[in-house]
Amino acid sequence: MRIEHLHPVPHLTTALTGPLLQIERHMLDQQAEIESWLRRQWQLTSAPFYASVDLRNAGFKLAPVDTNLFPAGFNNLNPAFQPLCIQAVQSAIERVCPQANQILLIPESHTRNVYYLESLALLHDLIKKAGFSVRIGSLQEDLTSPQTVDLPSGHRVVLEALIRHEDQIGLEGFVPCMILLNNDLASGRPAILEGLSQPVIPPLALGWSNRLKSGHFLHYEEVANEFAELIDIDPWLISPLFLKCGEIDFMKREGEECLVSNAARLLESIQRKYDEYQIEQRPFVVVKADAGTYGMGVMSIHDAEEIRTLNRKQRTRMAASKGGIDNTKVILQEGVYTFETWGDSLAVTEPVVYMIDHFVVGGFYRVHTKRGPNENLNSPGMHFEPLAFAEPCTAPELNLSPDAHPNRFYAYGVIARLALLASAREQADLSAD
Amino acid sequence: MRIEHLHPVPHLTTALTGPLLQIERHMLDQQAEIESWLRRQWQLTSAPFYASVDLRNAGFKLAPVDTNLFPAGFNNLNPAFQPLCIQAVQSAIERVCPQANQILLIPESHTRNVYYLESLALLHDLIKKAGFSVRIGSLQEDLTSPQTVDLPSGHRVVLEALIRHEDQIGLEGFVPCMILLNNDLASGRPAILEGLSQPVIPPLALGWSNRLKSGHFLHYEEVANEFAELIDIDPWLISPLFLKCGEIDFMKREGEECLVSNAARLLESIQRKYDEYQIEQRPFVVVKADAGTYGMGVMSIHDAEEIRTLNRKQRTRMAASKGGIDNTKVILQEGVYTFETWGDSLAVTEPVVYMIDHFVVGGFYRVHTKRGPNENLNSPGMHFEPLAFAEPCTAPELNLSPDAHPNRFYAYGVIARLALLASAREQADLSAD
Repeated sequence: MRIEHLHPVPHLTTALTGPLLQIERHMLDQQAEIESWLRRQWQLTSAPFYASVDLRNAGFKLAPVDTNLFPAGFNNLNPAFQPLCIQAVQSAIERVCPQANQILLIPESHTRNVYYLESLALLHDLIKKAGFSVRIGSLQEDLTSPQTVDLPSGHRVVLEALIRHEDQIGLEGFVPCMILLNNDLASGRPAILEGLSQPVIPPLALGWSNRLKSGHFLHYEEVANEFAELIDIDPWLISPLFLKCGEIDFMKREGEECLVSNAARLLESIQRKYDEYQIEQRPFVVVKADAGTYGMGVMSIHDAEEIRTLNRKQRTRMAASKGGIDNTKVILQEGVYTFETWGDSLAVTEPVVYMIDHFVVGGFYRVHTKRGPNENLNSPGMHFEPLAFAEPCTAPELNLSPDAHPNRFYAYGVIARLALLASAREQADLSAD
Repeated sequence: MRIEHLHPVPHLTTALTGPLLQIERHMLDQQAEIESWLRRQWQLTSAPFYASVDLRNAGFKLAPVDTNLFPAGFNNLNPAFQPLCIQAVQSAIERVCPQANQILLIPESHTRNVYYLESLALLHDLIKKAGFSVRIGSLQEDLTSPQTVDLPSGHRVVLEALIRHEDQIGLEGFVPCMILLNNDLASGRPAILEGLSQPVIPPLALGWSNRLKSGHFLHYEEVANEFAELIDIDPWLISPLFLKCGEIDFMKREGEECLVSNAARLLESIQRKYDEYQIEQRPFVVVKADAGTYGMGVMSIHDAEEIRTLNRKQRTRMAASKGGIDNTKVILQEGVYTFETWGDSLAVTEPVVYMIDHFVVGGFYRVHTKRGPNENLNSPGMHFEPLAFAEPCTAPELNLSPDAHPNRFYAYGVIARLALLASAREQADLSAD
């Protein structure tokens, strides 16, 4: 189904918007303090180069559920905000690498994914418009000569083979002064990128081979607590509860007990918060790979016992992860309902916010007509329609209602930046290792 | 006449676009080098806080004719690019004054000018959206209680009385950590702003009481030479020739001889360049106040003898300047034809480019239906229609023709930034004094 872009902003359908309106009201009233606090945070801890954050808006709660430090999907952003991206890329690169002119972009290797290549083409274009000479170096080992791919959008990408010479990496006739990674390293740290004299940004340590979602959410919890204190709200309203377990083998059913008991504990904790706010929905928990991306191995459960009764197919899906690395660690995260719907068919939507440097540059909604409000909208094989944000996230209108579109987008931009700050602290920790 | 915004980009009507296409071609081909060169320049010399630059596009030549370091007209920019302005304000302030939260904006005192107040309201709004607490302190001495002005756009400005306490300035209950000047100090440096411990940005030294247009254009000439060498073009294609004279008294006709002889010399120099490029237009010279703004005391002449035959009314107009300071120094500047026209009536247009920090954030065209291509479009009492740039200046499309709209706007953005760089060097000189 091709969604007509007639109503550019999804509708928030929930009876219980009280706490959210309260969060948004607090954010609007204290906008200058919030921005000032964030400015101080970026001075203490540099923002990662870029990020996209998946949010879920339950009306009573607005929280990030995943933070991607090697974002794709740039092609889903509103073309009207391209200048914002260009300007942010200029800020990011002049700070990170002031003398940079030649930039090498290293993408994911799944070159048959047209959506990904469209995003890559757009990212390439943004960096070029920002005033850099940029070329794409592929980690595919079978690439011997440049591979040109013409895309449905009319864009074209050229993938070239990497050449390493001592501690420098480049392409034929191209020695970059900075390597920009757009590969999440889910399959591990490529040897060819180790020990380079050129800066690799984001650093290899931020790839999924080092990073854990639970590490991110530990930092996020801390950030959310500090922020909640600043604007005087309950941190639960912006932060998903979570628990983790040690090694899990879904196929051999090893570690299952921990999973079941932690899921039960988590469901109880959520129920207590739901009771406190008189929320009548049924709590649910999302089980996902602690190291991973792409929504593989993701499962929503409303009852801890569901874990025991997984069938073989479900176990296989949970055990698999991107890049062929087995999913041995999982995170149990409080499920956040998404109560934003779009169009007459009330399709479920989920906002994704994009940042470059510490600037919010736009976002889009994942719109899905065949999923429920308690399901993950970014699963393998999942079809979603991107709906670009119609307005920027940086222009709150203080004289409009707290949930007026510019204000809702502003709130998204604030929460997404809290997740970005959590990643900045992760980055600082990992770089210090 | 209300101009309908049907054709958002003026038409460039000139037979002789050869050299301009050549400039634009050079700029596109060397975009990465240009941006890289500019990045180095901003590291050597910080950009002023903001600026607007008046450009003239003669088809064969594209050059700045005036640079305003206390820009108004923010209300003429395309609302679609507001997010760019907000992001640039964030960059500018976090660099200039990292701890700033409370900002005091000091505007011009001509509070009956609704156009100016609309611009002020917009500037206030931009800074607020950028996440600062901002209030407006007026230099009007008769202001005792806050004055609220409701504007046709629905915006409202509140002007408050300045309070100085020792070396700090503020408002009732408001001690700002930074003073943002939007007053060009044409009437001199106000004592109340001298010797403050808070940063005043831009510095008082950049006001028209210190600054001379000829000083700016000396720097511009140098910048244009460096840039022309970088992209291998004749610097004349982007730089207006100019000469100045010592003290002039238009009423007493003192200093007239220098004016006449320099005008003659300048017209000859222009003619030589016109001959070189086979340009058939008649050269003209613009005589304007060396210290001043607002297009007061501006006159176009095609023959040096015109200076001797000025009538009393013309002399009075040339002698007057903004803020009541007599116009005693003038600059003779090569007139640059504007060959961009708009609409069926072929109204003359002139682009104005806006920058915040070193970022181009948009611009607009002054569209005038009753002026010729050799006249100043920013004179007192002049009515022009603003036509917001339909596209950003930062997104050149290398596969389109050099004069395609995104590329023409890119060229405007580059030339405007050269003028900004000249001002950055002026600022460095004046601050060093």
